[in-house]
Amino acid sequence: MSVETPGADSNPLSLENIRSALARLDETIIFGLIERVQFCRNNIIYRKDGLGKELGGESLVDFLLHETERAQAKVRRYTSPDEHPFFKDLPAPLLPPLKYDTPLHPNAVNINDRLRAIYEEEIIPFICRPGDDRQWGSSGVNDVLLLQALSKRIHYGKFVAESKYRSNAAVFASLIRTRDRAGLLAAVTDASMEAQVLDRVYHKTDTYGHEVGAAKGQAAVDAAKVRAIYERWIIPLNKEVQVCYLLERPLP
Amino acid sequence: MSVETPGADSNPLSLENIRSALARLDETIIFGLIERVQFCRNNIIYRKDGLGKELGGESLVDFLLHETERAQAKVRRYTSPDEHPFFKDLPAPLLPPLKYDTPLHPNAVNINDRLRAIYEEEIIPFICRPGDDRQWGSSGVNDVLLLQALSKRIHYGKFVAESKYRSNAAVFASLIRTRDRAGLLAAVTDASMEAQVLDRVYHKTDTYGHEVGAAKGQAAVDAAKVRAIYERWIIPLNKEVQVCYLLERPLP
Repeated sequence: MSVETPGADSNPLSLENIRSALARLDETIIFGLIERVQFCRNNIIYRKDGLGKELGGESLVDFLLHETERAQAKVRRYTSPDEHPFFKDLPAPLLPPLKYDTPLHPNAVNINDRLRAIYEEEIIPFICRPGDDRQWGSSGVNDVLLLQALSKRIHYGKFVAESKYRSNAAVFASLIRTRDRAGLLAAVTDASMEAQVLDRVYHKTDTYGHEVGAAKGQAAVDAAKVRAIYERWIIPLNKEVQVCYLLERPLP
Repeated sequence: MSVETPGADSNPLSLENIRSALARLDETIIFGLIERVQFCRNNIIYRKDGLGKELGGESLVDFLLHETERAQAKVRRYTSPDEHPFFKDLPAPLLPPLKYDTPLHPNAVNINDRLRAIYEEEIIPFICRPGDDRQWGSSGVNDVLLLQALSKRIHYGKFVAESKYRSNAAVFASLIRTRDRAGLLAAVTDASMEAQVLDRVYHKTDTYGHEVGAAKGQAAVDAAKVRAIYERWIIPLNKEVQVCYLLERPLP
């Protein structure tokens, strides 16, 4: 995040490096989901003023995410090309800027508003049991971690898209020139890679979930549900980022 | 954290509930360690002014931990009997106080200063490879999560100690009355339970580490090192909290 620069020896567009970064983010996401499902939905933490007017009209998750982003903005998290804030009114970095040697073209793609709506309205009701167990703080802190990991995972599509563009420039340039959204979506889709990702997250969730479940004497987290979250939301949002990025990408 | 109250049906001193909470915290700690070892030691993030005077004399980890605690204090994290801040100058909660139905006696036990020194000076050099990979932000954010989980794990000793006291009040009262630290330490020590914890963290780290390592095509995290961290630091600090708590505990 914030204070990183890519290592001199790493090529951020190599498919191996991209896959390794995505696999690592998937670990974080799976673990975050396993943590979150131990708590109920706790809808109150997503409601504006849900915990009281003292939070200035924000929900608890608004408040925790906003404060986290403010602090991390000060140490320049959001100057990194692979980080995207949820809030727009963040303070300037306290630390002097870093030069990033990024392969990405300048772009303003940020679909965190949609991600957040999907997370709160679809993913949480899908994985958490209904009700309120008053574990509001733990749920909210965990939501912040998950939202940040999901945002990074989804916006990593920019690197994927740039890599795909470079390996097939003529085709992509033509689709971009004609603003062919459907064609771009088809061109960035790799069904066999998606199947691999789905298998991998299923297997990992199953392994971790049994461990955690066994430790707690509780039911393991449902690996099929984690796979479904990837299939319905994470992979499509990642591809949406790819398409949006390509549509903003300058042509030669 | 902050905004929680124990469920009406839960007994916070039942050994089953305590063990379940500790096992869950161990998951978080193991996963945090697996995450942290992907980065180098990055000593610069622990040095005052390491990243520049702009952070007001704080190290990066100081800054991130301090800001995190400020935000969480506002939503009353540190009014919860199982939460302990690292900083003393935190803002008052914005939200109105909650009533906690805690079995603990009032006490001021907080060994986070020692925990932090051990974490930065012993644990990080022990598990992370030397050097600087410039992943300062990710390392620092991860350190905050780990320090918070370790603090909670260690201070959970208060609940363990209260439970032990109640199950053997005469013996403990006598040791407390004579300020017998060594006797208290012996009385709270359960060698077979410690062996179980060490086996469990070894097994879990081995399982998770292989998964993560396989995903990245990298060496798995060293399960023996995670077990050693529990043996050398986490379990002894937990027992230290137990002894300190008992020495503060009022006698009948």
